[in-house]
Amino acid sequence: MTAPVRALPDEIAVVNVGLPMFADAVRAQGGTVTHVDWRPPAGGDPDAVRALTRLYADPSVDVANAEVLRRLDTGVPFLTGVRRADEVVPGVEGRMLLHCGPAVDWAQACDPLRRSMRAATVAEGWAADVAAADRLLAEGGVRLEPANHHDMVVPMASAIGPSAPVLVVELTADDGLVRSFAPINQGPGEVPWFGRDTDAAIARLRLLRDAVGPALAAVLQRSGPLDVLALAAQGIAMGDDLHMRTQAATNLLARTWLGHVAALPDDVRGPFADFLAGNHLFFLTPAMAAAKALTLWAGRVPGSSIVTSMARNGTTFGIRLPGSDRWYTTAAPPVGDALYYSGLGPDDAAPDIGDSAVLELVGLGGPAAANSPAVAAFLGGSMADAAAATDAFRRICVGASSRFTLPAAGFAGTPVGVDLRKVVATGVTPKVNTGILAASSGQGQVGAGVATAPLACFTEALHALAG
Amino acid sequence: MTAPVRALPDEIAVVNVGLPMFADAVRAQGGTVTHVDWRPPAGGDPDAVRALTRLYADPSVDVANAEVLRRLDTGVPFLTGVRRADEVVPGVEGRMLLHCGPAVDWAQACDPLRRSMRAATVAEGWAADVAAADRLLAEGGVRLEPANHHDMVVPMASAIGPSAPVLVVELTADDGLVRSFAPINQGPGEVPWFGRDTDAAIARLRLLRDAVGPALAAVLQRSGPLDVLALAAQGIAMGDDLHMRTQAATNLLARTWLGHVAALPDDVRGPFADFLAGNHLFFLTPAMAAAKALTLWAGRVPGSSIVTSMARNGTTFGIRLPGSDRWYTTAAPPVGDALYYSGLGPDDAAPDIGDSAVLELVGLGGPAAANSPAVAAFLGGSMADAAAATDAFRRICVGASSRFTLPAAGFAGTPVGVDLRKVVATGVTPKVNTGILAASSGQGQVGAGVATAPLACFTEALHALAG
Repeated sequence: MTAPVRALPDEIAVVNVGLPMFADAVRAQGGTVTHVDWRPPAGGDPDAVRALTRLYADPSVDVANAEVLRRLDTGVPFLTGVRRADEVVPGVEGRMLLHCGPAVDWAQACDPLRRSMRAATVAEGWAADVAAADRLLAEGGVRLEPANHHDMVVPMASAIGPSAPVLVVELTADDGLVRSFAPINQGPGEVPWFGRDTDAAIARLRLLRDAVGPALAAVLQRSGPLDVLALAAQGIAMGDDLHMRTQAATNLLARTWLGHVAALPDDVRGPFADFLAGNHLFFLTPAMAAAKALTLWAGRVPGSSIVTSMARNGTTFGIRLPGSDRWYTTAAPPVGDALYYSGLGPDDAAPDIGDSAVLELVGLGGPAAANSPAVAAFLGGSMADAAAATDAFRRICVGASSRFTLPAAGFAGTPVGVDLRKVVATGVTPKVNTGILAASSGQGQVGAGVATAPLACFTEALHALAG
Repeated sequence: MTAPVRALPDEIAVVNVGLPMFADAVRAQGGTVTHVDWRPPAGGDPDAVRALTRLYADPSVDVANAEVLRRLDTGVPFLTGVRRADEVVPGVEGRMLLHCGPAVDWAQACDPLRRSMRAATVAEGWAADVAAADRLLAEGGVRLEPANHHDMVVPMASAIGPSAPVLVVELTADDGLVRSFAPINQGPGEVPWFGRDTDAAIARLRLLRDAVGPALAAVLQRSGPLDVLALAAQGIAMGDDLHMRTQAATNLLARTWLGHVAALPDDVRGPFADFLAGNHLFFLTPAMAAAKALTLWAGRVPGSSIVTSMARNGTTFGIRLPGSDRWYTTAAPPVGDALYYSGLGPDDAAPDIGDSAVLELVGLGGPAAANSPAVAAFLGGSMADAAAATDAFRRICVGASSRFTLPAAGFAGTPVGVDLRKVVATGVTPKVNTGILAASSGQGQVGAGVATAPLACFTEALHALAG
């Protein structure tokens, strides 16, 4: 009895799954290997794997997610007007400031947010100067509430008082009107949203209240409601990510409104025109308010694993899920992949701050990076680097936008709907395109970059949803 | 004596040069082949090969070309003001119309150009209506001269009278000031540059003269000179090719000028603002005037093989070389790769028309297609189609722009400087992004597409240059 002859095959193909070191070893010996980048979900954490198993086995989650995606993708929010916050924002009254991010008290608020609150307190007339404002705030003389609790979103270190003009955005949904709000973007320079509390910063708030707000209200009255995301879609085709860069959309708006600006009364026409001409981030807050309207509508769908709030106050980072007011928070991360102004660096930087991350939940910002040369500059410089940022969102999103398309990515839609399950399974968290503020020097913006959302709050939310 | 043993090699590699049929035959038999797409220069035409050999052997041509490229790439034309044509354009006086393309008389002018001339004749007050204008033009009562002979370029079927407001562009060169001109773009709708001669078209000319021109002059006086190509470069990064699409540059200009528009006197502010708001091709003619300034400056360099005029009047297509006023002309081609308005097609279309092809000589238009989703729509729809259009220019150009960069092409500069030698050697002629006018119905624009320049006039110019 002889053993069967076994000839070695002419060619050996190796497929390696998991740890790359085995693939590397084959390659080092001159072999070819197909490597499959598989990792155990959730880094192999048994509790998370159990929660994921439960949530992926539950068909009601996918049903809820499909409805949430439909709302995020198809809602059409219109900018309808500009009003004083206390005239229109629910629950705003008396001495109250609405701030970015999850709830935070004065003692825990970061330096840029404190400065912004002091500037707003003076502009509201509650204190004669910033020193008096500081005392009033420290002794609890002003109620501090998250803008997100009032259907509003505010960029960077904004703190909005009751007399501030706010953008009113309306979405007529099949289950009732959705209304959301955002402040008018304060523009560049010495401005409270960048954490400044100088006289010029306070004057900017008064300019917004006394000239820019009334002028914008008059423009909107004349122009009629503005389909915010139709303009956003055009901005994206022109290289905006609509978060870090909103210039193309702002420029388009400026041309669209030109005739209405020309028709403004003499007293506000010049100041408003100069303000809009000098503010290439003007479109940031209309886009944020529109994104808030979409997430508010989507937030009416319980049982979904798609994130509908994501906000930072410079101290904590938090997310919320549809159908619930509960925040899942962790410490605000630093902003990475950053470019700093000359002479400044990470040591000068406050942690990630602002409600603008709502944009990343609806297919704007990071999801739209692939067509934005301006964002590419922060991510390594090439368009391939920008495409990688979009692709990272594709790994954690449930769908693609039917309205925000990326010419540089073969006109693919931007990823929409950040799914908690995918985030925890892959360990890939949303990366948010954002500005960077001074940690404590009060000098305002010190750079811009990309903040990576911390995983912990997603894991916590996953466990809560899995029950 | 035995013959040496010759063993067949284990592998056979085939390289095929020239006719692809041999490569196809190898592939059909399962072989692999590297195909080199070589063709005899100039299609093997012995006269053209002789002329090319002479011009490539003459080092003075390359020296002249280097200087022409430097001028096309580095000149900085500023839009400095707006004046009546007869106040500022050399040689404009009396009853004279400046038209697109090479010289053409009334008998040979195409229908859209005749209509445009009639509209201008009425607007100038030389005739009471278009019927009277027709008679006056037919009997030679108005001098017709190419705009290009007066340092001016005009888009599509434009005919410009002495009272028309013109953009004044100035380039301060090391060998003296260069001044060029273009009309204010007439905008969309019933307009003479699209070959309309209706009452509305005539009224548009009067609006430009009486309101838009004076307003624009006031804006420029307040804003100071405008660096036209700095804006163009930003427009390209935002998806303009700056020929078929100028929207991003126009929008940017609208925001830049907003404060100056707001400061205009009451009588012209509204009309000017409405005009600019409704005209996304406003930036076309500033870009054309700037391109004309560059080619005028480059045109002072004799002995170059780089084309410095390229223009069409709907009857003939012509080019000129630096250092000479001689036109090399052939019949105007039809516009291919076209999209027509609903219900219209090639039978309704006039041949290629307008001076705007000057843009393709300085790195705008076709050379900038690769980053323009709007242009891609005319070329097959994908960004790869648009990239192919840019690549075709790269085959016939001597250099790449240092200011017009294409994010979608790895931030490569657009091709600049169309070299007659390369055109004739490869048989690849410039492809020009352009609008399409009605052949004879008088209904104006019927579509847009890409016109392929005819080879004959390049071959004729090559022979003239080779002497």
